[in-house]
Amino acid sequence: PNSKLPDVKTTIFTEMSLLAQQENAVNLSQGFPDYQPDENLIKYLGDFAKQGYNQYAPLAGVKELREAISKKFNLQYRVDYHPDSEINITAGATQGIFTIISAFVGKDDEVIIFEPAYDCYEPAIILNGGIVKNVKMLYPDYEINWNEVKNLVSEKTKMMIINNPNNPSGKILKQKDIDELISIVKNTDIIILSDEVYESITFDEKPHLTLAKYPELKERTFVVGSFGKLLHITGWKIGYVCAPLDLMTEFRKVHQFNVFCVNTPAQFAISKYLQNMDDFQTISTFFQTKRDYLKNALKETPFQLLDCEGTYFLSANFGAISDKQDKDFCYWMTKEYKVATIPFSAFYKDKTDEKVIRFCFAKEQETLDKAIEKLLKIK
Amino acid sequence: PNSKLPDVKTTIFTEMSLLAQQENAVNLSQGFPDYQPDENLIKYLGDFAKQGYNQYAPLAGVKELREAISKKFNLQYRVDYHPDSEINITAGATQGIFTIISAFVGKDDEVIIFEPAYDCYEPAIILNGGIVKNVKMLYPDYEINWNEVKNLVSEKTKMMIINNPNNPSGKILKQKDIDELISIVKNTDIIILSDEVYESITFDEKPHLTLAKYPELKERTFVVGSFGKLLHITGWKIGYVCAPLDLMTEFRKVHQFNVFCVNTPAQFAISKYLQNMDDFQTISTFFQTKRDYLKNALKETPFQLLDCEGTYFLSANFGAISDKQDKDFCYWMTKEYKVATIPFSAFYKDKTDEKVIRFCFAKEQETLDKAIEKLLKIK
Ligand SMILES: CSCCC(=O)C(=O)O
Ligand SMILES: CSCCC(=O)C(=O)O
Repeated sequence: PNSKLPDVKTTIFTEMSLLAQQENAVNLSQGFPDYQPDENLIKYLGDFAKQGYNQYAPLAGVKELREAISKKFNLQYRVDYHPDSEINITAGATQGIFTIISAFVGKDDEVIIFEPAYDCYEPAIILNGGIVKNVKMLYPDYEINWNEVKNLVSEKTKMMIINNPNNPSGKILKQKDIDELISIVKNTDIIILSDEVYESITFDEKPHLTLAKYPELKERTFVVGSFGKLLHITGWKIGYVCAPLDLMTEFRKVHQFNVFCVNTPAQFAISKYLQNMDDFQTISTFFQTKRDYLKNALKETPFQLLDCEGTYFLSANFGAISDKQDKDFCYWMTKEYKVATIPFSAFYKDKTDEKVIRFCFAKEQETLDKAIEKLLKIK
Repeated sequence: PNSKLPDVKTTIFTEMSLLAQQENAVNLSQGFPDYQPDENLIKYLGDFAKQGYNQYAPLAGVKELREAISKKFNLQYRVDYHPDSEINITAGATQGIFTIISAFVGKDDEVIIFEPAYDCYEPAIILNGGIVKNVKMLYPDYEINWNEVKNLVSEKTKMMIINNPNNPSGKILKQKDIDELISIVKNTDIIILSDEVYESITFDEKPHLTLAKYPELKERTFVVGSFGKLLHITGWKIGYVCAPLDLMTEFRKVHQFNVFCVNTPAQFAISKYLQNMDDFQTISTFFQTKRDYLKNALKETPFQLLDCEGTYFLSANFGAISDKQDKDFCYWMTKEYKVATIPFSAFYKDKTDEKVIRFCFAKEQETLDKAIEKLLKIK
């Protein structure tokens, strides 16, 4: 049958997780924790279901959860979003992203994305008839060349998609990036989709610069967040979208006909859990310990590590080990050394291969140890 | 900002539920149960979360749940769907419907819908650049005029959307409708989206004729189902889509970038619950008691009742009470008599007003009694 995405394949995350299973390999590919979330959070889920919170939530999401998100922005970033008119709960960050793109990107609208780019942006743009304009960030620094961005911007530019902290590179935006971005978008109608799902995971005291902090950006920006990443519950599929009223109004028109609303007991459980949470720094600390553990171990191998400033991914160049294509290398390493990872080429439209692969360190100590033991054997 | 659905309003269900709240009225408008689901189902939700099922499910959905759906089709309808390649779990039926439309409907593709039509079809078609061709089913019979359908079909017809049992009319398709449908679509490439979310709720021994039973239809049909409706958990937002492999392959390409996957503990809880469920007839019996209760009471009022063959909605003409527009009548009745309902005009593109409103009877006895007490006062 004649569909609108004939060339799309199954996502690399599904592909590598399946391979890991088949090969009985340690799975450091797909980004999800293999440990349990806080037991209170789990208890709340059962409690709210028992107490009768099992029917449709409002389309904007449960009020208590929107209020908790508003409070979180205030506490962490001194940013104000109104819980009623500027915050919407989504079925995971991905559904927020897909809905934003579907609401605004139409035939021949151009969207600027930065590669390596998370794999859900491009198909959503194409599905809606839009045109992807990609700016490459390259090994080893993965810096944005803002001149290139300036040259791509035109009357046709409808949207820009920023992912900060960046999956897979682990880079975060600096003040100079923000300044460049502001100077490019001011006096345009460009909408910014800021995918900040790893906002609470930055390292070495480096701050996360949410685009919402800058009024010249906030007025045109959708900030997307994820409780899956924040609270170690990727399978609950609860995320959120924040934006000024005029953008949010258009978002909701599509959201209500895409999913209408989102899992009710999970929303209540998260909102109660957030009420008792006033320190988000602990999340960075938790993951930094894991990053450092994996980093120190990989220093004993021929892998050349990238600088990891945020996210729960550490990436490395394997050029000293092999000149295989990166995806072939991932297959080889999964089969021969029983550790599954993700090839960077999957994040580039043209499959740019810089011999870099991504390790997920959101894993329990035992899993990291198992992986490290195997990785230390690679020559 | 320039969005793709400038004219869309907040859904009528949200509008009327809010009004009901403001007016402290009995809410028979939006379709959801106000009683608890089976306590075992709730217990399973907490159990699976405690046992560690809190990370991403596969994009197709949890295997055990797909198997349970396959078994259910076999048991209830003697229909085979392969759990791996022909069934996909969705974030509610709505997300399934939106994803099907997004995957296949492109610029200038025509989609035939039958009105009164559930309100999520049309905006999804328009968002994707498609053109809505509507066939009206009218008071008092709401029969489909198949000649009209025949005349609308052309090379441009990409899809037909059937809703059986029909929300809001409560009508179900008969064998003669199926025969007409088969004769129209055979030798065409038309894809059918069969929204069967009320499949297990039909009355007076009338059978639900799923389109999946007819090979000439099944080969081109997406059947959409809802655990929200089946198990009284509209807030869990778990639905499913079944289709032959070639259609399902295209569906998954979009699904994976819309939501990627769906709430994990809810999927496991439902799959375990279904394992102990081998009689789906009880659901119809349960709702038939409620329908009859409301029906008998409304017979004492000036409302002219429609025949309700399925769904959990009973509808009625109020022409003997008022010549207000139906939506005005709903507002008036909510304010003056404190019972909220849904006007049929919301289900017609051109707001056809036949003085008919919809009552939801998926409510506990006490709620129905409260509503009835108020409705009996209407002259
Ligand atoms: C939705 S599966 C992918 C999870 C993830 O964010 C990643 O691995 O990058
Ligand atoms: C998603 S809110 C609407 C619920 C429903 O199915 C209805 O009331 O018709």
